[in-house]
Amino acid sequence: MRQVSVADLDDIASGAAVLGTGGGGDPYVGKLMAQTSLRRHGPAMLIAAAELADDDLVVPTGMMGAPTVMLEKVPSGSEIVRAFEALQAYLGRPIRATMSCEAGGLNSTTPFTVAAELGVPVVDADMMGRAFPELQMATPTLAGITATPLAIADEKGNSAIINTVSNRWTETFARTLTVDMGCSAMIAMYPMTGKQVKETCVLGTISTLQHIGVTLREAHARHVDPIEAVRAVTDGFVIWRGKIADVARRTETGFARGEAVVAGTGEFAGRDLRVAFQNEFLLAQSGDETLATTPDLIAMLDAETGEPITTEGMRYGFRVAVLAMPCDPRWRTPAGLDLVGPGYFGYDIPYVPVEARVAARV
Amino acid sequence: MRQVSVADLDDIASGAAVLGTGGGGDPYVGKLMAQTSLRRHGPAMLIAAAELADDDLVVPTGMMGAPTVMLEKVPSGSEIVRAFEALQAYLGRPIRATMSCEAGGLNSTTPFTVAAELGVPVVDADMMGRAFPELQMATPTLAGITATPLAIADEKGNSAIINTVSNRWTETFARTLTVDMGCSAMIAMYPMTGKQVKETCVLGTISTLQHIGVTLREAHARHVDPIEAVRAVTDGFVIWRGKIADVARRTETGFARGEAVVAGTGEFAGRDLRVAFQNEFLLAQSGDETLATTPDLIAMLDAETGEPITTEGMRYGFRVAVLAMPCDPRWRTPAGLDLVGPGYFGYDIPYVPVEARVAARV
Repeated sequence: MRQVSVADLDDIASGAAVLGTGGGGDPYVGKLMAQTSLRRHGPAMLIAAAELADDDLVVPTGMMGAPTVMLEKVPSGSEIVRAFEALQAYLGRPIRATMSCEAGGLNSTTPFTVAAELGVPVVDADMMGRAFPELQMATPTLAGITATPLAIADEKGNSAIINTVSNRWTETFARTLTVDMGCSAMIAMYPMTGKQVKETCVLGTISTLQHIGVTLREAHARHVDPIEAVRAVTDGFVIWRGKIADVARRTETGFARGEAVVAGTGEFAGRDLRVAFQNEFLLAQSGDETLATTPDLIAMLDAETGEPITTEGMRYGFRVAVLAMPCDPRWRTPAGLDLVGPGYFGYDIPYVPVEARVAARV
Repeated sequence: MRQVSVADLDDIASGAAVLGTGGGGDPYVGKLMAQTSLRRHGPAMLIAAAELADDDLVVPTGMMGAPTVMLEKVPSGSEIVRAFEALQAYLGRPIRATMSCEAGGLNSTTPFTVAAELGVPVVDADMMGRAFPELQMATPTLAGITATPLAIADEKGNSAIINTVSNRWTETFARTLTVDMGCSAMIAMYPMTGKQVKETCVLGTISTLQHIGVTLREAHARHVDPIEAVRAVTDGFVIWRGKIADVARRTETGFARGEAVVAGTGEFAGRDLRVAFQNEFLLAQSGDETLATTPDLIAMLDAETGEPITTEGMRYGFRVAVLAMPCDPRWRTPAGLDLVGPGYFGYDIPYVPVEARVAARV
């Protein structure tokens, strides 16, 4: 167990934007919210999954909805707490710890708000090892763990408890309620035992995020190449460098969907990279060639600073490097690819691990 | 307290189709469902509101969704029970009795399924004194009683418990979940004390429905005019006689909306009546003249048999009599008209009690 300070959250949020692959909401919003709570209540506690008792009750918390809307409607700490408390009341026993749903921008840090406000620790883990746009896309789903009972709450005081026969149904109901609630809502879901967390979640996530964030910050301080520093610490590959030439966006049924075009520079000059997103970056292609696909991670970094750029933060003219990183091995199984592979998102492209794609190009 | 038999349900459903003003779902479906449960478990018990203790817990049950869909997807008893049981578990104490949400076709009899399956009595009352298309349209709303916690369940095994800051929000959330659930769902809502039922609900509804049904059945047996018999027993007015010349329907966001045109015959010959509906009949106009509006009841009866015709049962060429009946006086208050008056449904027409409209014509 260790303390997480206001300054630590700067690094965690920075790392979370990298593994968030452009999604999960603006890390700045989640960080501000968590830091406000920490300043009011003192540091939050982070515990390793190994420190949980097997029968401890753990409930991940986060936000659901379109990041473009969250930017306009910044949530307060009390809203997140409301979903957590509604689920705790429904379950009828104390929740030992909360956790991040995903290693994405906003949702990596939202649990620290719950932790600070209620004095429960955050488990150093998540359910994706990255960010994904739908809530059934979680490693516990692969182990047969249900997402429900799920609590959802809005800032007006409305809430609901959902129980479903599959995690896909949970996603459906929570998504339409989120739209009714104004396209963003707070959720508490996937109640798990400590044993289930240890066996089915991606462990050490918060420490990994903090390590990436520290690496980026120190690269700035030491004037070393931040892109290379991030690449090295994430075992990633720089698959493109260029300038954002076009971004097409649409917000529909609670999602921010679209495609960006990055005109190549340097060794990539004369060619375009197309990056498709659905809250997160999902697919990177140049001409007929596929460079990386979900479930591997695709991140867009500012070419100068190495700062991650979210899908909603992309603007014409930005100079960027596109980084691809291997996903958690569980996503590469047939069941994992059914849930989050290219086919699920409507792309008729076989999944090939990014390291194999890179090796084939070289 | 008295028993309600399989045969009684025939009369109750018949009367419910009249007060259902064309809505609330096909009474035949609700009746079959309840009769199946009664045949399996024996008669259901009906209790007067006066027999409730002031602190008894009462929970109305019913179905939500588009009647056109319910015709294709007949619910089973176990589904209704699921919503009731989910709410009982959530409330954490036994529910003393169930009740009809509305005096509409399907939902007048669905509580008898719950009663037979679970052995709880039905209170002789409802929350509308007719049928209305949205769940905040209930006399308890006028008294400040909240519709939540509400339980909603589908036939697949999915369910949700909703808590909202207003009954309008309850309607919004329950409606979108109903659409997700396949455009029909089972609900248990408006948990009330016995005292609240006595003070805020329309009392004696089931007995009234049965009385109307018996009247209609005896009119057939005795070969007396069934239209006149129903008119007399409901204090109503025959505002039109004619032949259905056109029906325009659309099912959207869980509603069956549309308009019927009834070409006049006899004293109404040469003129058309336009009847607008939104699950229920809401407005009857001929040329520039308004004959009746919500919240007064508008029913369409088969001209020969006096049998009520639902909005989804209307067909070209049917010969009908249109009956208008005074609503519960609480709906005629300013707060009542805000909730269910013509303006709420988008008609820029002042509400005038039907008896005053009829008197003005004579």
